[in-house]
Amino acid sequence: MLKEPATKRGKATRDRLVAAADAMIAERGVEGASLDQILASADVSKSQLYHYFDGKDELVRAVIARRRAEIIGRQTSLLPELDSWDAIETWLKIVYEGHESHGFRGGCPIGSLANELADKDDRARLDLAEGFEAWQGLLVDGLKKMRARGEIKRSADPYELATAVFAAMQGGLLLAKTRREPEPLRIALDAARAHLRSYKTVRTK
Amino acid sequence: MLKEPATKRGKATRDRLVAAADAMIAERGVEGASLDQILASADVSKSQLYHYFDGKDELVRAVIARRRAEIIGRQTSLLPELDSWDAIETWLKIVYEGHESHGFRGGCPIGSLANELADKDDRARLDLAEGFEAWQGLLVDGLKKMRARGEIKRSADPYELATAVFAAMQGGLLLAKTRREPEPLRIALDAARAHLRSYKTVRTK
Repeated sequence: MLKEPATKRGKATRDRLVAAADAMIAERGVEGASLDQILASADVSKSQLYHYFDGKDELVRAVIARRRAEIIGRQTSLLPELDSWDAIETWLKIVYEGHESHGFRGGCPIGSLANELADKDDRARLDLAEGFEAWQGLLVDGLKKMRARGEIKRSADPYELATAVFAAMQGGLLLAKTRREPEPLRIALDAARAHLRSYKTVRTK
Repeated sequence: MLKEPATKRGKATRDRLVAAADAMIAERGVEGASLDQILASADVSKSQLYHYFDGKDELVRAVIARRRAEIIGRQTSLLPELDSWDAIETWLKIVYEGHESHGFRGGCPIGSLANELADKDDRARLDLAEGFEAWQGLLVDGLKKMRARGEIKRSADPYELATAVFAAMQGGLLLAKTRREPEPLRIALDAARAHLRSYKTVRTK
C-alpha cells in the first residue's frame, strides 16, 4: 500500500527517492537498478525507504505513477484538447520532436517499462495498462468530440483509432531507438495520420 | 569474435548454451538472466563457455542471431513470398495467431530484446536493427514485386510501407502484452492492413 507522507519534509524525501529510482531505471532498466544504488543516489536510508514503500516493487509502481503524471501533465498543458485536426497534427509533431531532442534514445517512458514488466509483475502491468489507457483517453475524448461535430465519419470508432495511433507510435519509437534514426518514427506517425485522415469527412477542411 | 565449434559435439554444447540463454532471457530479461544460472541450466562449465564466447555480451548476440534465424526460418518455410494480397493476409493471420497461442505474453522475441538493449549495448543494437531489417526485408521484397506487377500503386514506397506495418505490429504486441488482451494487436494489424490496401490499384481483385 502506498503510504502518503504526512509532512512536507517527508514528501520531499519520498519525491527524491522516486525521482532517483526513475532516473536509475531509465538508465539501467528495473532489473538493473538495484535498491542500494537508488538509495545511495537519493541519499535516503533503507529505513526511510520502508517508511514509504514496502520494497522495490512498490517503488517501481511509484515510478510508473510519476511517469504517467508527467506525460499526461505535459501533454494537457501544451494541448488541453485533441479535438481538431490541427490539435492532432500539433500533438504528432510534439511527440516526434520530443524524441528527436533525445536522439531517439530511451523510447517511451511508459512503453519501455511495459516491455520489461508486463510478464513479470502483474500489479505493475495493470498500472502500466491504466497509464496507457489514461494517455490514449485524451485522444479518444478528442476524436469523440470530432465525431459528434461531424469532422470524422460516424463509422469511426474513436477507441480503435486511438489504439492504432498509439500502437504506431510505440512501434515507431522502438524501431527508431533500435536503428537510432528518425525514419521509423516519422514513417509510423505518417501512417497513423493517414489512417486517421481516412476517417475524415469531406465537409471539413 | 564468435568462434565456430570444430566438432559435432562442440556444436551441440554451443547450441545447448545458446538455447538455455534464450530461454532464461525470455523469462527474466538480459539483465535478470545471470551467466551462472544460464550455465547451470545448460549444464555447461564456465571454461566451456569461454571456449565459444568472450562473455555474456557475446552470448546475448548469439541469442539475437538464433531468434532472428528462427523467425525468418519459420516465416519463409510457411510463406516463401509475401508478394500477393493473399500472402500478406495469411502472414498477418499467422502473426496474430502465433501471439494468441502464447496468450499475448512475451511480445516479440526481437522487439523485447531491442527494447532492453538498444540504449545499453551498441553491438547488440546493431544486430537487432539488422534483424529487423532482414525480417522486414521479406515484406519489402514482396511489395516490390507487387508494385512491378501493378498490384500496388507506383507511388507506394515498399520500404516505408513495410516499416509502417512493422511499427504497427511491434506497438500492437507491446500494448497487447501490457493489457494481456488481443484487441490492441488486432486493431494495430487491421490498421496496418488498411494502410497497405490504401495503395492497392483498382485493377487487382
